[in-house]
Amino acid sequence: MKIGFVGLGIMGRPMALNLLRAGHELTVWARRPAALPPLLEAGARAAHDLAALAQGQDMVISMVADAPDVAAVMQTMASAAEPGLVAVDMSTIAPAAAREIHGDLQAKGIDFIDAPVSGGEPGAIAGSLSIMAGGSAQAFAHALPAFAAMGQSIVHVGGPGAGQVAKAANQVVTGMGVVAVAEAFNFAQQNGVDPARVREALLGGFAFSKILENHGQRMIARNFTPGFKSWMHAKDLHIVMQTAHELQVGLPGAAVAEQLFAAALAQGLGEADSVAVLQVLEQLSGGRP
Amino acid sequence: MKIGFVGLGIMGRPMALNLLRAGHELTVWARRPAALPPLLEAGARAAHDLAALAQGQDMVISMVADAPDVAAVMQTMASAAEPGLVAVDMSTIAPAAAREIHGDLQAKGIDFIDAPVSGGEPGAIAGSLSIMAGGSAQAFAHALPAFAAMGQSIVHVGGPGAGQVAKAANQVVTGMGVVAVAEAFNFAQQNGVDPARVREALLGGFAFSKILENHGQRMIARNFTPGFKSWMHAKDLHIVMQTAHELQVGLPGAAVAEQLFAAALAQGLGEADSVAVLQVLEQLSGGRP
Repeated sequence: MKIGFVGLGIMGRPMALNLLRAGHELTVWARRPAALPPLLEAGARAAHDLAALAQGQDMVISMVADAPDVAAVMQTMASAAEPGLVAVDMSTIAPAAAREIHGDLQAKGIDFIDAPVSGGEPGAIAGSLSIMAGGSAQAFAHALPAFAAMGQSIVHVGGPGAGQVAKAANQVVTGMGVVAVAEAFNFAQQNGVDPARVREALLGGFAFSKILENHGQRMIARNFTPGFKSWMHAKDLHIVMQTAHELQVGLPGAAVAEQLFAAALAQGLGEADSVAVLQVLEQLSGGRP
Repeated sequence: MKIGFVGLGIMGRPMALNLLRAGHELTVWARRPAALPPLLEAGARAAHDLAALAQGQDMVISMVADAPDVAAVMQTMASAAEPGLVAVDMSTIAPAAAREIHGDLQAKGIDFIDAPVSGGEPGAIAGSLSIMAGGSAQAFAHALPAFAAMGQSIVHVGGPGAGQVAKAANQVVTGMGVVAVAEAFNFAQQNGVDPARVREALLGGFAFSKILENHGQRMIARNFTPGFKSWMHAKDLHIVMQTAHELQVGLPGAAVAEQLFAAALAQGLGEADSVAVLQVLEQLSGGRP
Protein backbone atom coordinates (compact mmCIF):
# COMPACT_ATOMS: atom_id res chain seq x y z
CA MET A 1 0.00 0.00 0.00
CA LYS A 2 1.05 3.61 -0.56
CA ILE A 3 1.15 5.21 2.87
CA GLY A 4 1.97 8.73 4.03
CA PHE A 5 3.27 8.88 7.62
CA VAL A 6 3.66 11.94 9.83
CA GLY A 7 5.12 11.95 13.36
CA LEU A 8 8.49 10.20 13.64
CA GLY A 9 8.98 10.33 17.41
CA ILE A 10 9.71 7.56 19.92
CA MET A 11 6.62 5.63 18.83
CA GLY A 12 6.19 6.80 15.23
CA ARG A 13 9.68 5.98 14.00
CA PRO A 14 9.65 2.23 14.79
CA MET A 15 6.03 1.99 13.59
CA ALA A 16 7.02 3.54 10.24
CA LEU A 17 10.04 1.23 9.99
CA ASN A 18 7.74 -1.78 10.47
CA LEU A 19 5.51 -0.55 7.64
CA LEU A 20 8.57 -0.41 5.37
CA ARG A 21 9.68 -3.90 6.45
CA ALA A 22 6.24 -5.25 5.59
CA GLY A 23 6.72 -3.97 2.02
CA HIS A 24 4.53 -0.85 2.05
CA GLU A 25 5.55 2.18 -0.05
CA LEU A 26 6.17 4.82 2.57
CA THR A 27 6.38 8.59 2.25
CA VAL A 28 7.23 10.49 5.42
CA TRP A 29 7.16 14.02 6.74
CA ALA A 30 8.42 15.34 10.08
CA ARG A 31 8.47 18.72 11.73
CA ARG A 32 12.11 18.11 12.70
CA PRO A 33 14.17 17.26 9.57
CA ALA A 34 16.62 15.40 11.83
CA ALA A 35 14.00 12.67 12.26
CA LEU A 36 14.07 11.80 8.54
CA PRO A 37 17.45 10.11 7.75
CA PRO A 38 16.78 6.74 9.53
CA LEU A 39 13.57 6.36 7.52
CA LEU A 40 15.11 7.46 4.21
CA GLU A 41 17.98 5.00 4.70
CA ALA A 42 15.40 2.26 5.24
CA GLY A 43 13.74 3.08 1.90
CA ALA A 44 11.11 5.75 2.64
CA ARG A 45 10.66 8.85 0.46
CA ALA A 46 10.39 12.34 1.98
CA ALA A 47 7.46 14.61 1.11
CA HIS A 48 8.49 18.25 0.71
CA ASP A 49 5.54 19.39 2.81
CA LEU A 50 2.57 18.04 4.73
CA ALA A 51 0.08 18.71 1.92
CA ALA A 52 2.25 16.76 -0.53
CA LEU A 53 2.34 13.84 1.91
CA ALA A 54 -1.36 13.24 1.31
CA GLN A 55 -1.20 13.24 -2.51
CA GLY A 56 -1.47 9.91 -4.34
CA GLN A 57 -1.66 7.82 -1.16
CA ASP A 58 -3.94 4.91 -0.26
CA MET A 59 -3.85 6.05 3.35
CA VAL A 60 -2.15 8.51 5.67
CA ILE A 61 -1.18 7.89 9.30
CA SER A 62 -0.42 10.42 12.03
CA MET A 63 1.35 9.69 15.31
CA VAL A 64 1.74 13.08 17.01
CA ALA A 65 1.50 14.70 20.43
CA ASP A 66 -2.04 15.88 21.12
CA ALA A 67 -5.47 16.74 19.71
CA PRO A 68 -4.62 20.21 18.27
CA ASP A 69 -1.65 18.63 16.44
CA VAL A 70 -3.84 15.86 15.03
CA ALA A 71 -6.51 18.34 13.92
CA ALA A 72 -3.94 20.65 12.26
CA VAL A 73 -2.12 17.82 10.49
CA MET A 74 -5.37 16.29 9.22
CA GLN A 75 -6.71 19.64 8.02
CA THR A 76 -3.56 20.38 6.00
CA MET A 77 -3.54 16.91 4.47
CA ALA A 78 -7.27 17.07 3.70
CA SER A 79 -6.73 20.24 1.65
CA ALA A 80 -4.51 18.30 -0.75
CA ALA A 81 -6.06 14.84 -0.63
CA GLU A 82 -8.28 13.19 -3.20
CA PRO A 83 -11.66 12.00 -1.92
CA GLY A 84 -11.55 8.32 -0.93
CA LEU A 85 -8.36 8.66 1.12
CA VAL A 86 -8.38 6.80 4.44
CA ALA A 87 -6.81 8.86 7.23
CA VAL A 88 -5.70 7.16 10.44
CA ASP A 89 -4.62 8.82 13.66
CA MET A 90 -2.79 6.60 16.13
CA SER A 91 -2.08 9.28 18.79
CA THR A 92 -3.91 9.22 22.13
CA ILE A 93 -6.46 12.07 22.26
CA ALA A 94 -9.93 12.61 23.75
CA PRO A 95 -12.78 10.61 22.17
CA ALA A 96 -14.72 13.85 21.59
CA ALA A 97 -11.75 15.37 19.70
CA ALA A 98 -11.48 12.24 17.55
CA ARG A 99 -15.21 12.41 16.73
CA GLU A 100 -14.89 16.06 15.74
CA ILE A 101 -11.99 15.33 13.38
CA HIS A 102 -13.99 12.42 11.98
CA GLY A 103 -16.90 14.76 11.18
CA ASP A 104 -14.64 17.40 9.57
CA LEU A 105 -12.91 14.86 7.32
CA GLN A 106 -16.11 13.03 6.41
CA ALA A 107 -17.46 16.34 5.03
CA LYS A 108 -14.42 16.35 2.68
CA GLY A 109 -14.94 12.75 1.55
CA ILE A 110 -12.14 11.34 3.72
CA ASP A 111 -12.80 8.32 5.90
CA PHE A 112 -11.13 8.72 9.30
CA ILE A 113 -10.11 6.07 11.84
CA ASP A 114 -9.00 6.74 15.41
CA ALA A 115 -6.59 3.92 16.22
CA PRO A 116 -4.59 4.59 19.39
CA VAL A 117 -2.13 1.97 20.57
CA SER A 118 -0.91 0.34 23.75
CA GLY A 119 2.41 -1.38 24.29
CA GLY A 120 4.87 1.52 24.43
CA GLU A 121 8.21 1.81 22.64
CA PRO A 122 9.07 -1.91 23.03
CA GLY A 123 5.75 -2.86 21.40
CA ALA A 124 6.30 -0.31 18.61
CA ILE A 125 9.77 -1.73 17.89
CA ALA A 126 8.61 -5.37 18.01
CA GLY A 127 5.50 -4.68 15.91
CA SER A 128 3.46 -6.13 18.77
CA LEU A 129 1.31 -3.10 19.63
CA SER A 130 -2.27 -3.45 20.74
CA ILE A 131 -4.33 -1.35 18.28
CA MET A 132 -7.84 -0.15 19.21
CA ALA A 133 -9.74 1.19 16.20
CA GLY A 134 -12.88 3.30 15.82
CA GLY A 135 -14.51 4.11 12.48
CA SER A 136 -16.36 2.48 9.60
CA ALA A 137 -15.96 -1.22 8.84
CA GLN A 138 -14.83 -0.41 5.28
CA ALA A 139 -12.11 1.98 6.40
CA PHE A 140 -10.96 -0.52 9.06
CA ALA A 141 -10.70 -3.29 6.44
CA HIS A 142 -8.75 -0.91 4.20
CA ALA A 143 -6.28 -0.06 6.99
CA LEU A 144 -5.90 -3.61 8.33
CA PRO A 145 -2.78 -4.57 6.30
CA ALA A 146 -0.99 -1.51 7.71
CA PHE A 147 -2.17 -2.28 11.27
CA ALA A 148 -0.96 -5.87 10.87
CA ALA A 149 2.57 -4.57 10.21
CA MET A 150 2.60 -2.60 13.47
CA GLY A 151 0.43 -4.56 15.91
CA GLN A 152 -0.43 -7.98 17.22
CA SER A 153 -3.81 -7.47 18.85
CA ILE A 154 -5.96 -5.42 16.44
CA VAL A 155 -9.58 -4.83 17.42
CA HIS A 156 -12.25 -2.83 15.59
CA VAL A 157 -13.96 -1.55 18.75
CA GLY A 158 -16.80 0.42 17.12
CA GLY A 159 -17.70 3.65 15.31
CA PRO A 160 -15.91 7.04 15.36
CA GLY A 161 -14.14 7.68 18.69
CA ALA A 162 -14.51 4.07 19.89
CA GLY A 163 -10.77 3.46 19.58
CA GLN A 164 -10.05 6.43 21.87
CA VAL A 165 -12.73 5.23 24.31
CA ALA A 166 -11.02 1.83 24.45
CA LYS A 167 -7.63 3.51 24.93
CA ALA A 168 -9.08 5.60 27.78
CA ALA A 169 -10.46 2.38 29.33
CA ASN A 170 -7.01 0.85 28.86
CA GLN A 171 -5.34 3.74 30.69
CA VAL A 172 -7.85 3.41 33.56
CA VAL A 173 -7.10 -0.31 33.93
CA THR A 174 -3.32 0.02 33.56
CA GLY A 175 -3.08 3.23 35.66
CA MET A 176 -5.09 1.74 38.51
CA GLY A 177 -3.17 -1.51 38.03
CA VAL A 178 0.20 0.19 38.54
CA VAL A 179 -1.15 2.02 41.61
CA ALA A 180 -2.65 -1.21 43.02
CA VAL A 181 0.63 -3.11 42.73
CA ALA A 182 2.57 -0.16 44.17
CA GLU A 183 0.16 0.09 47.14
CA ALA A 184 0.36 -3.68 47.73
CA PHE A 185 4.17 -3.71 47.63
CA ASN A 186 4.50 -0.62 49.86
CA PHE A 187 2.00 -2.16 52.32
CA ALA A 188 4.10 -5.35 52.45
CA GLN A 189 7.39 -3.45 52.85
CA GLN A 190 5.95 -1.30 55.65
CA ASN A 191 4.80 -4.56 57.33
CA GLY A 192 8.33 -5.97 57.14
CA VAL A 193 7.48 -8.45 54.39
CA ASP A 194 9.54 -8.84 51.19
CA PRO A 195 7.53 -7.51 48.18
CA ALA A 196 9.34 -9.99 45.91
CA ARG A 197 7.81 -12.90 47.88
CA VAL A 198 4.42 -11.20 47.82
CA ARG A 199 4.66 -10.77 44.04
CA GLU A 200 5.49 -14.45 43.65
CA ALA A 201 2.51 -15.46 45.83
CA LEU A 202 0.12 -13.14 43.96
CA LEU A 203 1.22 -14.21 40.47
CA GLY A 204 -0.25 -17.67 41.11
CA GLY A 205 -3.83 -16.50 41.74
CA PHE A 206 -6.56 -14.10 40.63
CA ALA A 207 -4.24 -11.14 41.26
CA PHE A 208 -2.23 -12.11 38.16
CA SER A 209 -1.80 -9.30 35.66
CA LYS A 210 0.82 -8.25 33.13
CA ILE A 211 1.29 -5.16 35.31
CA LEU A 212 2.08 -7.31 38.38
CA GLU A 213 4.46 -9.44 36.32
CA ASN A 214 6.25 -6.72 34.36
CA HIS A 215 5.85 -3.43 36.26
CA GLY A 216 5.92 -5.31 39.60
CA GLN A 217 9.31 -6.76 38.72
CA ARG A 218 10.64 -3.30 37.88
CA MET A 219 9.32 -1.86 41.17
CA ILE A 220 11.16 -4.60 43.08
CA ALA A 221 14.35 -3.94 41.12
CA ARG A 222 13.73 -0.19 41.73
CA ASN A 223 14.21 0.28 38.01
CA PHE A 224 12.45 3.56 37.21
CA THR A 225 13.83 3.90 33.65
CA PRO A 226 11.02 4.46 31.13
CA GLY A 227 9.23 2.51 29.57
CA PHE A 228 6.16 4.67 29.75
CA LYS A 229 6.80 8.00 31.46
CA SER A 230 4.79 9.21 34.46
CA TRP A 231 3.85 12.49 32.77
CA MET A 232 2.39 10.57 29.83
CA HIS A 233 0.22 8.42 32.07
CA ALA A 234 -0.82 11.59 33.93
CA LYS A 235 -1.71 13.21 30.58
CA ASP A 236 -3.75 10.21 29.43
CA LEU A 237 -5.64 10.00 32.74
CA HIS A 238 -6.29 13.73 32.56
CA ILE A 239 -7.98 13.14 29.16
CA VAL A 240 -10.02 10.34 30.73
CA MET A 241 -11.14 12.50 33.67
CA GLN A 242 -12.00 15.40 31.36
CA THR A 243 -14.15 13.10 29.22
CA ALA A 244 -15.73 11.62 32.37
CA HIS A 245 -16.52 15.13 33.57
CA GLU A 246 -18.18 16.08 30.27
CA LEU A 247 -20.31 12.94 30.23
CA GLN A 248 -20.97 12.94 34.01
CA VAL A 249 -19.40 9.52 34.48
CA GLY A 250 -18.09 8.75 37.97
CA LEU A 251 -14.56 7.30 38.02
CA PRO A 252 -13.45 7.45 41.68
CA GLY A 253 -10.59 4.95 41.34
CA ALA A 254 -9.20 6.51 38.15
CA ALA A 255 -9.40 9.93 39.85
CA VAL A 256 -7.10 8.71 42.62
CA ALA A 257 -4.69 7.21 40.09
CA GLU A 258 -4.66 10.51 38.14
CA GLN A 259 -3.85 12.43 41.34
CA LEU A 260 -1.03 10.05 42.28
CA PHE A 261 0.59 10.40 38.84
CA ALA A 262 0.12 14.17 39.15
CA ALA A 263 1.92 13.95 42.52
CA ALA A 264 4.75 12.03 40.82
CA LEU A 265 5.12 14.98 38.41
CA ALA A 266 5.06 17.44 41.32
CA GLN A 267 7.88 15.47 42.93
CA GLY A 268 10.05 15.69 39.82
CA LEU A 269 9.33 12.12 38.70
CA GLY A 270 7.62 13.06 35.42
CA GLU A 271 10.41 11.69 33.22
CA ALA A 272 10.64 8.48 35.27
CA ASP A 273 8.59 5.42 34.38
CA SER A 274 5.04 5.28 35.74
CA VAL A 275 6.22 2.65 38.27
CA ALA A 276 7.82 5.61 40.12
CA VAL A 277 4.36 6.17 41.63
CA LEU A 278 5.68 3.67 44.20
CA GLN A 279 7.91 6.50 45.51
CA VAL A 280 4.87 8.75 45.95
CA LEU A 281 3.17 6.03 48.02
CA GLU A 282 6.31 5.51 50.10
CA GLN A 283 6.29 9.23 50.92
CA LEU A 284 2.62 9.00 51.95
CA SER A 285 3.79 6.41 54.49
CA GLY A 286 6.64 8.51 55.86
CA GLY A 287 9.31 7.01 53.62
CA ARG A 288 10.61 3.60 52.66
CA PRO A 289 11.42 1.51 55.75
CA MET B 1 -0.39 -37.28 57.85
CA LYS B 2 -2.82 -37.19 60.78
CA ILE B 3 -4.70 -33.93 60.46
CA GLY B 4 -7.40 -32.33 62.58
CA PHE B 5 -9.64 -29.92 60.64
CA VAL B 6 -12.10 -27.38 62.02
CA GLY B 7 -14.41 -25.16 59.96
CA LEU B 8 -16.42 -27.03 57.32
CA GLY B 9 -18.04 -24.10 55.53
CA ILE B 10 -18.09 -23.16 51.84
CA MET B 11 -14.29 -23.17 51.69
CA GLY B 12 -13.39 -25.62 54.48
CA ARG B 13 -15.49 -28.53 53.29
CA PRO B 14 -13.93 -28.93 49.82
CA MET B 15 -10.46 -28.28 51.29
CA ALA B 16 -10.98 -31.08 53.84
CA LEU B 17 -12.28 -33.41 51.12
CA ASN B 18 -9.12 -32.78 49.10
CA LEU B 19 -6.99 -33.72 52.14
CA LEU B 20 -8.89 -37.03 52.36
CA ARG B 21 -8.47 -37.68 48.62
CA ALA B 22 -4.71 -37.13 48.96
CA GLY B 23 -4.63 -39.95 51.56
CA HIS B 24 -4.33 -37.96 54.78
CA GLU B 25 -5.99 -39.32 57.97
CA LEU B 26 -8.55 -36.67 58.73
CA THR B 27 -10.42 -35.93 61.95
CA VAL B 28 -13.01 -33.17 61.77
CA TRP B 29 -15.03 -31.02 64.12
CA ALA B 30 -17.71 -28.45 63.26
CA ARG B 31 -19.88 -26.13 65.31
CA ARG B 32 -22.87 -27.24 63.22
CA PRO B 33 -23.22 -31.07 63.34
CA ALA B 34 -25.05 -30.89 59.99
CA ALA B 35 -21.71 -30.07 58.34
CA LEU B 36 -20.21 -33.44 59.31
CA PRO B 37 -21.94 -36.18 57.24
CA PRO B 38 -20.33 -35.40 53.84
CA LEU B 39 -16.89 -35.64 55.45
CA LEU B 40 -17.67 -38.80 57.43
CA GLU B 41 -19.01 -40.48 54.26
CA ALA B 42 -15.73 -39.60 52.54
CA GLY B 43 -13.76 -41.35 55.31
CA ALA B 44 -13.09 -38.70 57.97
CA ARG B 45 -13.54 -39.40 61.69
CA ALA B 46 -15.44 -36.99 63.95
CA ALA B 47 -13.84 -35.63 67.13
CA HIS B 48 -16.31 -35.40 70.05
CA ASP B 49 -15.07 -31.92 70.89
CA LEU B 50 -12.56 -29.32 69.79
CA ALA B 51 -9.95 -30.26 72.44
CA ALA B 52 -10.07 -33.89 71.29
CA LEU B 53 -9.51 -32.77 67.71
CA ALA B 54 -5.97 -31.68 68.63
CA GLN B 55 -4.93 -34.92 70.34
CA GLY B 56 -2.57 -37.27 68.53
CA GLN B 57 -2.38 -35.18 65.37
CA ASP B 58 0.60 -34.18 63.23
CA MET B 59 -1.14 -30.91 62.46
CA VAL B 60 -4.41 -29.07 62.90
CA ILE B 61 -6.02 -26.70 60.40
CA SER B 62 -8.68 -24.06 61.00
CA MET B 63 -10.81 -22.38 58.31
CA VAL B 64 -13.26 -20.20 60.20
CA ALA B 65 -14.90 -16.76 60.05
CA ASP B 66 -12.73 -14.15 61.78
CA ALA B 67 -9.89 -13.44 64.21
CA PRO B 68 -11.81 -14.03 67.50
CA ASP B 69 -12.94 -17.43 66.12
CA VAL B 70 -9.38 -18.36 65.16
CA ALA B 71 -8.04 -17.28 68.56
CA ALA B 72 -10.75 -19.21 70.45
CA VAL B 73 -10.35 -22.37 68.35
CA MET B 74 -6.56 -22.33 68.68
CA GLN B 75 -6.69 -21.70 72.45
CA THR B 76 -9.01 -24.66 73.03
CA MET B 77 -6.89 -26.95 70.87
CA ALA B 78 -3.68 -25.76 72.50
CA SER B 79 -5.01 -26.79 75.92
CA ALA B 80 -5.18 -30.43 74.75
CA ALA B 81 -2.27 -30.59 72.29
CA GLU B 82 1.11 -32.15 72.82
CA PRO B 83 4.09 -29.84 72.24
CA GLY B 84 5.44 -30.14 68.70
CA LEU B 85 2.02 -29.85 67.08
CA VAL B 86 1.90 -27.64 63.97
CA ALA B 87 -1.22 -25.45 63.91
CA VAL B 88 -2.30 -23.83 60.65
CA ASP B 89 -4.96 -21.17 60.19
CA MET B 90 -6.17 -20.64 56.63
CA SER B 91 -8.82 -17.99 57.40
CA THR B 92 -8.31 -14.36 56.35
CA ILE B 93 -7.60 -12.21 59.45
CA ALA B 94 -5.46 -9.17 60.27
CA PRO B 95 -1.66 -9.70 60.20
CA ALA B 96 -1.45 -8.33 63.77
CA ALA B 97 -4.04 -10.87 65.00
CA ALA B 98 -2.12 -13.69 63.33
CA ARG B 99 1.12 -12.54 64.99
CA GLU B 100 -0.59 -12.45 68.39
CA ILE B 101 -1.90 -16.01 67.98
CA HIS B 102 1.57 -17.07 66.85
CA GLY B 103 3.07 -15.66 70.06
CA ASP B 104 0.43 -17.31 72.30
CA LEU B 105 0.92 -20.73 70.71
CA GLN B 106 4.71 -20.50 70.62
CA ALA B 107 4.64 -20.05 74.41
CA LYS B 108 2.85 -23.43 74.57
CA GLY B 109 5.34 -25.19 72.27
CA ILE B 110 3.06 -25.12 69.25
CA ASP B 111 4.39 -23.89 65.92
CA PHE B 112 1.78 -21.73 64.16
CA ILE B 113 1.43 -20.87 60.46
CA ASP B 114 -0.89 -18.25 58.99
CA ALA B 115 -1.78 -19.55 55.53
CA PRO B 116 -4.71 -17.66 54.01
CA VAL B 117 -5.84 -18.61 50.53
CA SER B 118 -7.04 -17.03 47.31
CA GLY B 119 -9.12 -18.69 44.60
CA GLY B 120 -12.57 -18.90 46.21
CA GLU B 121 -14.94 -21.88 46.25
CA PRO B 122 -13.98 -23.04 42.72
CA GLY B 123 -10.30 -23.10 43.71
CA ALA B 124 -11.12 -24.92 46.96
CA ILE B 125 -13.08 -27.61 45.06
CA ALA B 126 -10.43 -28.00 42.33
CA GLY B 127 -7.56 -28.07 44.83
CA SER B 128 -6.05 -25.14 42.93
CA LEU B 129 -5.98 -22.52 45.69
CA SER B 130 -3.21 -19.99 45.98
CA ILE B 131 -1.75 -20.43 49.51
CA MET B 132 0.29 -17.64 51.15
CA ALA B 133 2.13 -18.85 54.24
CA GLY B 134 3.84 -17.08 57.14
CA GLY B 135 5.80 -18.82 59.89
CA SER B 136 8.99 -20.82 60.44
CA ALA B 137 10.64 -22.71 57.59
CA GLN B 138 10.41 -25.98 59.59
CA ALA B 139 6.68 -25.64 60.20
CA PHE B 140 6.14 -24.71 56.54
CA ALA B 141 8.03 -27.81 55.38
CA HIS B 142 5.97 -29.90 57.81
CA ALA B 143 2.69 -28.51 56.45
CA LEU B 144 3.65 -28.61 52.78
CA PRO B 145 2.16 -32.06 51.95
CA ALA B 146 -1.21 -30.84 53.28
CA PHE B 147 -0.94 -27.56 51.36
CA ALA B 148 -0.12 -29.51 48.18
CA ALA B 149 -3.43 -31.36 48.49
CA MET B 150 -5.41 -28.09 48.58
CA GLY B 151 -3.43 -25.62 46.49
CA GLN B 152 -1.48 -25.12 43.30
CA SER B 153 0.57 -22.00 44.01
CA ILE B 154 2.09 -22.38 47.49
CA VAL B 155 4.50 -19.68 48.64
CA HIS B 156 6.33 -19.33 51.98
CA VAL B 157 6.15 -15.53 52.09
CA GLY B 158 8.04 -14.97 55.35
CA GLY B 159 7.79 -15.09 59.14
CA PRO B 160 4.70 -14.91 61.39
CA GLY B 161 1.92 -12.81 59.82
CA ALA B 162 3.58 -12.68 56.38
CA GLY B 163 0.87 -14.90 54.88
CA GLN B 164 -1.83 -12.45 56.02
CA VAL B 165 0.21 -9.51 54.72
CA ALA B 166 0.38 -11.20 51.30
CA LYS B 167 -3.35 -11.93 51.44
CA ALA B 168 -4.02 -8.27 52.28
CA ALA B 169 -1.83 -7.26 49.32
CA ASN B 170 -3.79 -9.74 47.21
CA GLN B 171 -7.10 -8.16 48.23
CA VAL B 172 -5.75 -4.70 47.40
CA VAL B 173 -4.71 -5.82 43.90
CA THR B 174 -7.89 -7.84 43.19
CA GLY B 175 -10.24 -5.28 44.79
CA MET B 176 -8.73 -2.39 42.84
CA GLY B 177 -8.63 -4.66 39.79
CA VAL B 178 -12.38 -5.33 39.93
CA VAL B 179 -13.08 -1.60 40.43
CA ALA B 180 -10.72 -0.67 37.54
CA VAL B 181 -12.45 -3.03 35.10
CA ALA B 182 -15.90 -1.88 36.28
CA GLU B 183 -14.92 1.79 35.83
CA ALA B 184 -13.47 1.08 32.38
CA PHE B 185 -16.58 -0.82 31.24
CA ASN B 186 -19.00 1.76 32.65
CA PHE B 187 -16.96 4.53 30.99
CA ALA B 188 -17.22 2.71 27.65
CA GLN B 189 -20.95 2.04 28.03
CA GLN B 190 -21.64 5.68 28.95
CA ASN B 191 -19.67 6.66 25.81
CA GLY B 192 -21.86 4.41 23.65
CA VAL B 193 -19.13 1.81 23.14
CA ASP B 194 -19.67 -1.94 23.68
CA PRO B 195 -17.72 -3.07 26.78
CA ALA B 196 -17.33 -6.55 25.26
CA ARG B 197 -15.29 -5.04 22.38
CA VAL B 198 -13.28 -2.98 24.86
CA ARG B 199 -12.54 -6.11 26.90
CA GLU B 200 -11.34 -7.90 23.77
CA ALA B 201 -9.08 -4.97 22.82
CA LEU B 202 -7.64 -4.71 26.36
CA LEU B 203 -6.96 -8.43 26.77
CA GLY B 204 -4.31 -8.20 24.04
CA GLY B 205 -2.11 -5.66 25.82
CA PHE B 206 -0.64 -4.56 29.15
CA ALA B 207 -4.16 -4.30 30.61
CA PHE B 208 -4.40 -8.09 30.64
CA SER B 209 -5.34 -9.55 34.02
CA LYS B 210 -7.23 -12.58 35.26
CA ILE B 211 -9.75 -10.09 36.68
CA LEU B 212 -10.32 -8.56 33.20
CA GLU B 213 -10.63 -12.03 31.68
CA ASN B 214 -12.82 -13.69 34.31
CA HIS B 215 -14.63 -10.97 36.26
CA GLY B 216 -14.82 -8.79 33.13
CA GLN B 217 -16.65 -11.55 31.29
CA ARG B 218 -19.14 -11.87 34.16
CA MET B 219 -19.74 -8.09 34.21
CA ILE B 220 -20.53 -8.17 30.49
CA ALA B 221 -22.89 -11.15 30.97
CA ARG B 222 -24.34 -9.23 33.97
CA ASN B 223 -23.82 -12.42 35.98
CA PHE B 224 -23.68 -11.28 39.62
CA THR B 225 -23.90 -14.79 41.13
CA PRO B 226 -21.06 -15.39 43.64
CA GLY B 227 -18.19 -16.35 43.30
CA PHE B 228 -16.75 -14.14 45.96
CA LYS B 229 -19.38 -12.06 47.71
CA SER B 230 -19.21 -8.25 47.91
CA TRP B 231 -19.50 -8.26 51.72
CA MET B 232 -16.47 -10.57 51.95
CA HIS B 233 -14.34 -8.29 49.79
CA ALA B 234 -15.56 -5.33 51.87
CA LYS B 235 -14.58 -7.22 55.05
CA ASP B 236 -11.13 -8.08 53.72
CA LEU B 237 -10.47 -4.50 52.57
CA HIS B 238 -11.64 -3.25 55.95
CA ILE B 239 -8.96 -5.45 57.57
CA VAL B 240 -6.41 -3.99 55.14
CA MET B 241 -7.41 -0.39 55.90
CA GLN B 242 -7.38 -1.05 59.65
CA THR B 243 -3.85 -2.47 59.39
CA ALA B 244 -2.81 0.46 57.18
CA HIS B 245 -4.19 2.85 59.78
CA GLU B 246 -2.27 1.19 62.63
CA LEU B 247 1.00 1.25 60.67
CA GLN B 248 0.37 4.68 59.11
CA VAL B 249 0.56 3.34 55.58
CA GLY B 250 -1.22 5.40 52.90
CA LEU B 251 -3.44 3.33 50.59
CA PRO B 252 -5.53 5.89 48.67
CA GLY B 253 -6.60 3.51 45.88
CA ALA B 254 -7.51 0.67 48.23
CA ALA B 255 -9.50 3.16 50.34
CA VAL B 256 -11.66 4.01 47.32
CA ALA B 257 -12.17 0.32 46.53
CA GLU B 258 -13.17 -0.32 50.16
CA GLN B 259 -15.72 2.49 50.02
CA LEU B 260 -17.20 1.24 46.74
CA PHE B 261 -17.65 -2.28 48.14
CA ALA B 262 -19.17 -0.70 51.27
CA ALA B 263 -21.56 1.18 48.96
CA ALA B 264 -22.46 -2.14 47.31
CA LEU B 265 -23.44 -3.45 50.76
CA ALA B 266 -25.44 -0.29 51.47
CA GLN B 267 -27.34 -0.87 48.23
CA GLY B 268 -28.29 -4.43 49.20
CA LEU B 269 -25.65 -6.06 46.97
CA GLY B 270 -23.69 -7.69 49.81
CA GLU B 271 -24.65 -11.24 48.84
CA ALA B 272 -23.95 -10.57 45.15
CA ASP B 273 -20.53 -11.23 43.65
CA SER B 274 -17.94 -8.46 43.99
CA VAL B 275 -18.44 -7.69 40.26
CA ALA B 276 -21.73 -6.06 41.36
CA VAL B 277 -19.59 -3.01 42.18
CA LEU B 278 -20.29 -2.23 38.50
CA GLN B 279 -23.86 -1.38 39.55
CA VAL B 280 -22.57 1.10 42.15
CA LEU B 281 -20.51 2.82 39.44
CA GLU B 282 -23.48 2.90 37.07
CA GLN B 283 -25.50 4.67 39.79
CA LEU B 284 -22.68 7.21 40.25
CA SER B 285 -23.18 8.01 36.55
CA GLY B 286 -26.96 8.39 36.78
CA GLY B 287 -27.76 4.82 35.79
CA ARG B 288 -26.92 2.40 33.01
CA PRO B 289 -27.55 3.97 29.58
